[in-house]
Amino acid sequence: MMSGGQFELFQKLLSNVNQNSLFYKEKFEKNGIKVEDIKAPEDIKNIPFTTKEELRDAYPLGLQAVSDEKVVRIHSSSGTTGKPIIIPYTAQDVEDWAVMMARSFEIAGVTPLDRVQITPGYGLWTAGIGFQAGVEKLGAMAVPMGPGNTDKQLQMMMDLKSTVIIGTSSYALVLAEEVERRGIRSEIKLRKGVIGSERWGEKMRQRIKNELSIEIYDIYGLTEIYGPGIGIDCDCHEGMHYYDDYLYFEIIDSETGEVLPEGETGELVITTLRKEGAPLVRYRTRDLTRIISGKCRCGRTYPRIDRIIGRTDDMVKVKGVNIYPGQIDEVLKEVEGASSEYQILIDHINGKDVMTLKVEYNSDGDTDRSDIEDNIVDIFKKRIGIQIIAEVSGIGSLPRSEKKSRRIIDYRHC
Amino acid sequence: MMSGGQFELFQKLLSNVNQNSLFYKEKFEKNGIKVEDIKAPEDIKNIPFTTKEELRDAYPLGLQAVSDEKVVRIHSSSGTTGKPIIIPYTAQDVEDWAVMMARSFEIAGVTPLDRVQITPGYGLWTAGIGFQAGVEKLGAMAVPMGPGNTDKQLQMMMDLKSTVIIGTSSYALVLAEEVERRGIRSEIKLRKGVIGSERWGEKMRQRIKNELSIEIYDIYGLTEIYGPGIGIDCDCHEGMHYYDDYLYFEIIDSETGEVLPEGETGELVITTLRKEGAPLVRYRTRDLTRIISGKCRCGRTYPRIDRIIGRTDDMVKVKGVNIYPGQIDEVLKEVEGASSEYQILIDHINGKDVMTLKVEYNSDGDTDRSDIEDNIVDIFKKRIGIQIIAEVSGIGSLPRSEKKSRRIIDYRHC
Ligand SMILES: [Zn+2]
Ligand SMILES: [Zn+2]
Repeated sequence: MMSGGQFELFQKLLSNVNQNSLFYKEKFEKNGIKVEDIKAPEDIKNIPFTTKEELRDAYPLGLQAVSDEKVVRIHSSSGTTGKPIIIPYTAQDVEDWAVMMARSFEIAGVTPLDRVQITPGYGLWTAGIGFQAGVEKLGAMAVPMGPGNTDKQLQMMMDLKSTVIIGTSSYALVLAEEVERRGIRSEIKLRKGVIGSERWGEKMRQRIKNELSIEIYDIYGLTEIYGPGIGIDCDCHEGMHYYDDYLYFEIIDSETGEVLPEGETGELVITTLRKEGAPLVRYRTRDLTRIISGKCRCGRTYPRIDRIIGRTDDMVKVKGVNIYPGQIDEVLKEVEGASSEYQILIDHINGKDVMTLKVEYNSDGDTDRSDIEDNIVDIFKKRIGIQIIAEVSGIGSLPRSEKKSRRIIDYRHC
Repeated sequence: MMSGGQFELFQKLLSNVNQNSLFYKEKFEKNGIKVEDIKAPEDIKNIPFTTKEELRDAYPLGLQAVSDEKVVRIHSSSGTTGKPIIIPYTAQDVEDWAVMMARSFEIAGVTPLDRVQITPGYGLWTAGIGFQAGVEKLGAMAVPMGPGNTDKQLQMMMDLKSTVIIGTSSYALVLAEEVERRGIRSEIKLRKGVIGSERWGEKMRQRIKNELSIEIYDIYGLTEIYGPGIGIDCDCHEGMHYYDDYLYFEIIDSETGEVLPEGETGELVITTLRKEGAPLVRYRTRDLTRIISGKCRCGRTYPRIDRIIGRTDDMVKVKGVNIYPGQIDEVLKEVEGASSEYQILIDHINGKDVMTLKVEYNSDGDTDRSDIEDNIVDIFKKRIGIQIIAEVSGIGSLPRSEKKSRRIIDYRHC
């Protein structure tokens, strides 16, 4: 699994942070970790994880592992709650990130002739400037719009004949809807969309794809690990390639912390093999995915992870099995007559977990209600491994919510 | 005035744009300009100016003078009225600009140990990313805030111990006032301010300087010519050094178009000697300044221009003499007892221009009113060369306006 070259970089990283990062020196000391004890890839599992909370506690610059002269920039997570996380970058970090981003664009088929409209924000955020650096390194043309101002976005898109759009799925949908509403689709020259890999539904994907006539590429990243651009879809769309020459990925059971066998879904843990400003060892991303085995049909040797299926915070454990909203979507897609609107109720009755999956009819389905219910139960059992109760109801009968996680109501802890 | 090296670059530029820029090929043809006729520096005056209107008319990409593959970015002027101006950049242009910006920071005494808080906007604007590229090239630490969110700005300023603030004079004033209001001055570690060189009053400058305890450096630039960073104050504060290895500056009479002798105030005209994406020949900036003769006391050999005294749009001609708001400020500073609040009335009576300068008392002045009036008339005559009428009135008697140009009321065209 881990190449010799990767392990060498891992060992170098450990001795680097043990020497230059007060954060890790203290952490290793507290946990009785001796860098020289990590002699083989199988020893890595003994190194404690690094968590988001620890990064927050290191505010403002506790993660810095180089002298002040070497830091050329900081970025920061938006910090919805509590202190933000601040990540310092060296010039080499900025360059390495741009190399990965340019590589990502190349994998998505972007060329120096493309005109790439960048709609995410700049400043403390990693998104805007990260995308722009990659576009420029590739030699395509950056149209640096930043967020909002849909009128101007569409004007520039038409006037400059932008061929690639970068943004969140929700903003891409706004643009798609406006293009349709204004009837300007023939004036839009987009051919590709590079969309930040949050969890988003298949329907939304199809709508953006169809209304803008573009091919969509999921791009992965997080502020703590450079920013966006550390992984992306290729034309095969069978997972996102990531860059094992810069990063080491592990998948763990987010409850036990145990490393899972290749192919199993769990929490993604990333180690930065070359980062200087703020190197991270075994960082728990809270993102749920799996490593996809085997070589991609595109021929590239960069390994792959699956689309992000959710966040560890959204996960529920029922009858000892971890369930993620993304898995429910997958099941429902297979059931004829079932829509993608659902709600989950979990209860604990007579010492046993009971899960009820409420689903709405599909608008154009004429399958029998009890057939759909039987089907859901069967496929759920087959795919996820547990017995549930299915209840199919009319369209509009379930509450709508933006956040998939809100669709799960867990009575067990009430 | 023009060095041999500069003229060589100028000639190369001319043959480049004559070959690769449709914009200039057509312009030269229309004006009967043959590139081979420009044989010596004195021939330059025969080349027609390039105006802001022409740049607007070239929307969207009519200025582009390289093939599409070579363009890595565009920037755009905000375009308050009419079409915006779009400027395409090659990778070399981006690099050249960063070199000039890093040089500007160096001249302002910024070092790799400084932490530079960047408050201008990113995206289509040149400011944010232009400053950031220079900070990073110098090796200082960029704190990329972007505009607004004063709470967060001050928090980061304290937590990250920012030492340099970059912004407009008006936003610097907002920050200065908030620092005072919150009583957090001892927690602010700023030592320098790099302030975009719009016209701004001496009082505002002193207030920002005192309340933030910083040394202020005026930085010059415009979107059409890279962006900010093409000129800056040194520690002597006797004009802004600009980079004659990248740019050729001329000062013209904005009415006649005649090139003015060194030292005289007029409109700044810039030729880009190395720009690839959108080279400009004799571009009329509409900025009023003068070239400062002689070598700077700092020892640097880069030539200097004076602070921007105003815009050609703000200029009025009285009795055949051009007057700019900035000149009025200069006169009033010399007059004891006069404040900087003034209003100008211009009339045409019996075939002659009559200019009345209304000025408020200075708050703590106890000089006699008519003495002040006599003084103003004398100094105005000496500095600007025309006879005026001065009227001194009480504090608060004149209307307040943000824009200096609104203080001039010209009845001649009513
Ligand atoms: Zn592939
Ligand atoms: Zn100097």
